[in-house]
Amino acid sequence: MPICKALINCLNAASFSIFRSLGGKRHEELILPINSSLSVTLHQDQLKTTTTVACSRHFQEDRIWLNGKEEDINQPRIQSCLREIRRLARKRRSDEDLSNDISLAHRVHICSVNNFPTAAGLASSAAGYACLVYSLSRLFGVDGELSLVARQGSGSACRSMYGGFVQWKMGERQDGKDSLAEQVEPESHWPELRVLVLVVSAERKLVGSTSGMQTSVKTSKLLKHRADCVVPGRMEEMISAIQRRDFAAFGELTMKDSNQFHATCLDTYPPIFYLNDISQKVISLVHRYNQHYQDTRVTYTFDAGPNAVIYTLEDHVPEFIQVVRYFFPPETNGGEFVKGLPVGPASLSEDLKTAIGLEPVPKGISYIISTKVGPGPCVVEDPKLHLLNPEGLPKKST
Amino acid sequence: MPICKALINCLNAASFSIFRSLGGKRHEELILPINSSLSVTLHQDQLKTTTTVACSRHFQEDRIWLNGKEEDINQPRIQSCLREIRRLARKRRSDEDLSNDISLAHRVHICSVNNFPTAAGLASSAAGYACLVYSLSRLFGVDGELSLVARQGSGSACRSMYGGFVQWKMGERQDGKDSLAEQVEPESHWPELRVLVLVVSAERKLVGSTSGMQTSVKTSKLLKHRADCVVPGRMEEMISAIQRRDFAAFGELTMKDSNQFHATCLDTYPPIFYLNDISQKVISLVHRYNQHYQDTRVTYTFDAGPNAVIYTLEDHVPEFIQVVRYFFPPETNGGEFVKGLPVGPASLSEDLKTAIGLEPVPKGISYIISTKVGPGPCVVEDPKLHLLNPEGLPKKST
Repeated sequence: MPICKALINCLNAASFSIFRSLGGKRHEELILPINSSLSVTLHQDQLKTTTTVACSRHFQEDRIWLNGKEEDINQPRIQSCLREIRRLARKRRSDEDLSNDISLAHRVHICSVNNFPTAAGLASSAAGYACLVYSLSRLFGVDGELSLVARQGSGSACRSMYGGFVQWKMGERQDGKDSLAEQVEPESHWPELRVLVLVVSAERKLVGSTSGMQTSVKTSKLLKHRADCVVPGRMEEMISAIQRRDFAAFGELTMKDSNQFHATCLDTYPPIFYLNDISQKVISLVHRYNQHYQDTRVTYTFDAGPNAVIYTLEDHVPEFIQVVRYFFPPETNGGEFVKGLPVGPASLSEDLKTAIGLEPVPKGISYIISTKVGPGPCVVEDPKLHLLNPEGLPKKST
Repeated sequence: MPICKALINCLNAASFSIFRSLGGKRHEELILPINSSLSVTLHQDQLKTTTTVACSRHFQEDRIWLNGKEEDINQPRIQSCLREIRRLARKRRSDEDLSNDISLAHRVHICSVNNFPTAAGLASSAAGYACLVYSLSRLFGVDGELSLVARQGSGSACRSMYGGFVQWKMGERQDGKDSLAEQVEPESHWPELRVLVLVVSAERKLVGSTSGMQTSVKTSKLLKHRADCVVPGRMEEMISAIQRRDFAAFGELTMKDSNQFHATCLDTYPPIFYLNDISQKVISLVHRYNQHYQDTRVTYTFDAGPNAVIYTLEDHVPEFIQVVRYFFPPETNGGEFVKGLPVGPASLSEDLKTAIGLEPVPKGISYIISTKVGPGPCVVEDPKLHLLNPEGLPKKST
């Protein structure tokens, strides 16, 4: 006899910023950013989080398992999400005078895994918190502005509540009620757009930084100027470029924002470095590639790490993958170099190789994840994919 | 019988910025910068330019030899210096109605060498132009504001006209007549101050950049904010720190200015990278070293390249050199690791090694030049040091 009263299983994809708000926050606890930001939600087929939540009157306490290991449920950010969802559920029931099978007094069990390669160093907390909030909302039958809840788990998680191109509007209110995510365009808007994650090999990972992003807002003299004077105008241009599907404008703004973000990291004291020599080489490669074609065909962006996220259009993927393979020759016995969406063959002209003209760095890039824009979180019914068994405990395989 | 009518031989040292004005210029031809800047002139015993100038009615044309090779005398910046010096000489003679042995109609021969190791990639043009202008001024008997002349050869050369700590005031006039160098304090002001140039090994030099500094002023949204809103206040603080010999304040401002300069390079489009992974590691090392002592004992600054220029006080030099040797183990048969001023022995505590805790990078630093603050250009009488023979041609050995 199943113990669980209800069990919900959800998927969510990773999302990557194309317009960033540095860790500098105008309110630390509510997680209110100093500027608006924009991200692209990727496809769940390649980089995904799966979360199963269950509740039962037999559960003694709230519990959480992450990637196969039980974690402390009392982490403040997890508690924020649980508390907010329960508050919304309570509010809804009193508003609508509904009775619901799920008692708010029931404890929940949460189990979540993500399939991001550990070596990739790709931020998984946004996808994780978004998936958690979405799953809990389904469990408790809560609608409404879930991005406000997700934001309090992990700021950028609010953008992962939607598919496609998503803006996090910084808002103006002290209580943060207007600091929420809005879909700019859905995932179907720009079907030719492709995303390549260039995973920098582990041995090329950089020396640790000596300070965190939270110090940037206190020490960088350039950060505030960026937030107040540069981002608002560029954000408008970016949204317009996406709406027009103007890759050259989109690409240029994406590169400029990534560079300016890392510039403010460097202007932090002590400085923060996320780009290493391989990242710098990828940046040069992209500029030289575009220069060769006199056209912005490929764009890069970097989060808090050395891995490059490349955007380009479908037609240019095969050639650009060959360029990466040529200038970062992979290990011959190192498994597949390109994971994810299949990529067709292409040859490189001598002209192009000469125009790029960089010294190849063997094994500088471990592998590439080939993916595209994807939808927001969704419920998966197939019980085989559930991470909790009918007793509400993690299945053996997870 | 000597052909030369007069022969002057001068020395000048390299100088390194501790407060920069990015290539962005408000006037390209007059070389007027977008903000004031500050540098330290180093000692001629370690890094120097030697320049001999001679003139004679027998010379057919102006000629110049640089580092043993004849170069084109018609380079616009060399021509600017020659023209300005001759103009000042003419003006002085008409003002004072003096007759002088040296006819302004005489052609000059110029011979200049610098002893900077080629691998060091240390900008030599500032020292070179300053030495040229000083030598010519002695030859033609010109006094007055020579930094105005040197500025038109190479902007930063104006600061190399003085020893010690030198400010280049950006000035306000359209004609640049107030954009000149001023000594803040002489070389004797802070005798304990030491300078270590950490020369990054050639194989770690970075991929070339795809754009020059001249694009920064056009494309970096942060550069103007830095020039207008950050530099003026910090410059005042820096001058005061130097005057008080307050190393902690001096050190912190030096690091912040270097980082902000490189941040604006990264904010340029396409971005410019001068710091490579070894530079980043040196930066981390310095912060961790200071953190260990809870005191800013060492500071770094980087010009347009990966080599670190370290300032510290005499007492800390031996230990810091050992730290560099430990975390960048030199080749065992690679010649002397420390060149220049002798450095005493020191041992490293396990505590300090643990506190720094970086992965050592063998041969990451080729060698260190140990030097200190030095005087401005001077005349050297010893004929053995002259670079031109009595016929006005380069001696064989140069």
